[in-house]
Amino acid sequence: MTIEGKSYRTVWFEDNRLCLINQPLLPHRFEIVRIGDYREAALAIRNMVVRGAPAIGATAAYAMALAVLRGEDPEEAYRVIGGARPTAQDLFYGIGRIREALAGGRDALEEADRIADEYVASSERIGEYGSSLIRDGMRINTHCNAGWLATVDWGTALAPVYKAVRQNRKVFVYADETRPRCQGSRLTAYELLQENVPHAVIADNAAGFYMSRGMIDMVIVGSDRIAANGDIANKIGTYTSALAARANGIPFYVAAPFATVDRDCPTGGDIPIEERSGEEVSHMFGISEKTGEADRVRVAPEGSECLNPAFDVTPADLITGIITERGIFSPGEIGRQLT
Amino acid sequence: MTIEGKSYRTVWFEDNRLCLINQPLLPHRFEIVRIGDYREAALAIRNMVVRGAPAIGATAAYAMALAVLRGEDPEEAYRVIGGARPTAQDLFYGIGRIREALAGGRDALEEADRIADEYVASSERIGEYGSSLIRDGMRINTHCNAGWLATVDWGTALAPVYKAVRQNRKVFVYADETRPRCQGSRLTAYELLQENVPHAVIADNAAGFYMSRGMIDMVIVGSDRIAANGDIANKIGTYTSALAARANGIPFYVAAPFATVDRDCPTGGDIPIEERSGEEVSHMFGISEKTGEADRVRVAPEGSECLNPAFDVTPADLITGIITERGIFSPGEIGRQLT
Repeated sequence: MTIEGKSYRTVWFEDNRLCLINQPLLPHRFEIVRIGDYREAALAIRNMVVRGAPAIGATAAYAMALAVLRGEDPEEAYRVIGGARPTAQDLFYGIGRIREALAGGRDALEEADRIADEYVASSERIGEYGSSLIRDGMRINTHCNAGWLATVDWGTALAPVYKAVRQNRKVFVYADETRPRCQGSRLTAYELLQENVPHAVIADNAAGFYMSRGMIDMVIVGSDRIAANGDIANKIGTYTSALAARANGIPFYVAAPFATVDRDCPTGGDIPIEERSGEEVSHMFGISEKTGEADRVRVAPEGSECLNPAFDVTPADLITGIITERGIFSPGEIGRQLT
Repeated sequence: MTIEGKSYRTVWFEDNRLCLINQPLLPHRFEIVRIGDYREAALAIRNMVVRGAPAIGATAAYAMALAVLRGEDPEEAYRVIGGARPTAQDLFYGIGRIREALAGGRDALEEADRIADEYVASSERIGEYGSSLIRDGMRINTHCNAGWLATVDWGTALAPVYKAVRQNRKVFVYADETRPRCQGSRLTAYELLQENVPHAVIADNAAGFYMSRGMIDMVIVGSDRIAANGDIANKIGTYTSALAARANGIPFYVAAPFATVDRDCPTGGDIPIEERSGEEVSHMFGISEKTGEADRVRVAPEGSECLNPAFDVTPADLITGIITERGIFSPGEIGRQLT
């Protein structure tokens, strides 16, 4: 994607360094982080300098390559990187591919580049398949950020939007702000601005309202892990969004590459759900009106516990279809496509 | 309710002034606003210095009394105060009661005091009826703030919790933070801390997750307007909460006095929904970590539109019961109770 005239991926490798767009600073500042140590890369995943399942997958693969380039123990790197976050299947996919490559005597960095390229190709295919669902004038609701910042390029849920817009269809996006970390108001809004896609940011609470008023034609979200039965884990709030879509007869699509499918996970109930710090709920990060600097404000009172599950599970029966690089499948078909 | 050892109502009249707890400053600072002019009172309602349907109703009644005390035209005051906010039925109830009193030759301030006292009595009755639903150990989810800060005293949705706790039942409250203005993390958490009720603040997105995990036994919310058919308007996000409760077989109760019922409003579709400034979504108010002062941080990028409907409608068929000062009714019975 193009940022201020220059073409970027979200994750890439350059001068023996893993390079990442520093996402917590967006939309207020565009900065690149350069990482030479796999432990730092694992920390960048944990602290969400990079996030989004496919972007995590590519980052994890490059982090493994960093360990190999530095002559460090790949099994130790596998353990450390694999412990960075529990829910996104792509993390395990990325490090698993590098471990297999090493076992097969192949080059780790070449394999990581291949994985990144495959993610780009998958995302573009997801965009093409998904855009076939988008008619001119459609109003699309999305949750969290599943655009190019969540992948290596293009995106998952947003790739169909970008493809449709390039095919000159009018699209309007309702972007859920996606509390607590506001990937919607920070990242999705930033992406849509860069691509000149008409949009509005709404509180997550407002999505059901717009659905009930007939103002949303389709919901597309990404996924962090897809179970073999077609249940999906995605950012907290996806489940209620799917319930509201069902109640209002609105198609609810999930967009993800096959790297997100976990064949060893029979159902959504088997997906581990990350609990993050309550400070993400009690505090909000942004640009201070008084100082113009990055700052956090405390909203909740001291003394109140804040709980922060980062993902929820949307059962297969609420999902209209899963948009993949191989086509659009019903959730029930996903497991059969793995063989 | 007691704040740091002193007993308060949310709204009262003293020394020819309307007194309000300044709610936007909570939980960080406790301050009383004293108002001598009805126009200022209308502005305090519009700017949500006071909010919550019953608290608005009492404030509006006192604002009318202020106009009369100052020898100003009550019809002009009726128009100005009535234009402060569109959704809460209690606003129109409060000013309507004063207009009727004036027409009957009764004293406006005495009538306003009577209205405030009636709200307190209603809230306490709601607490008693509602607490009969709460068994020891229950985990209750609530949205927005419908505690004593939203009423004159006791609350609506939280009154049953306070009553149950005083009857020595253990209760745990999951308080939705309630974006965009965070009345849950600011006000409900503050109230529950003051009353020593065990609780956790969660992102609105997480309520469905906890419901799906069997960790919520009951939902109780307030209401800003109840239509004659039992549909209710309440803070944005209530509708999706009700959908999630239904999907998980969890009872969903609405607590409100009869002053909130609008006999002239046949269905929820007839309730006007306030659109508030998008800045409530793009920015967050709190206490700066860097300066320790009240501040706002911008979260969304400049250039992105933010939309901010303040209420939504929950249809009667998603509501288990409406807890009122006269008992607990099915939504369908509410209309019949009006005659």
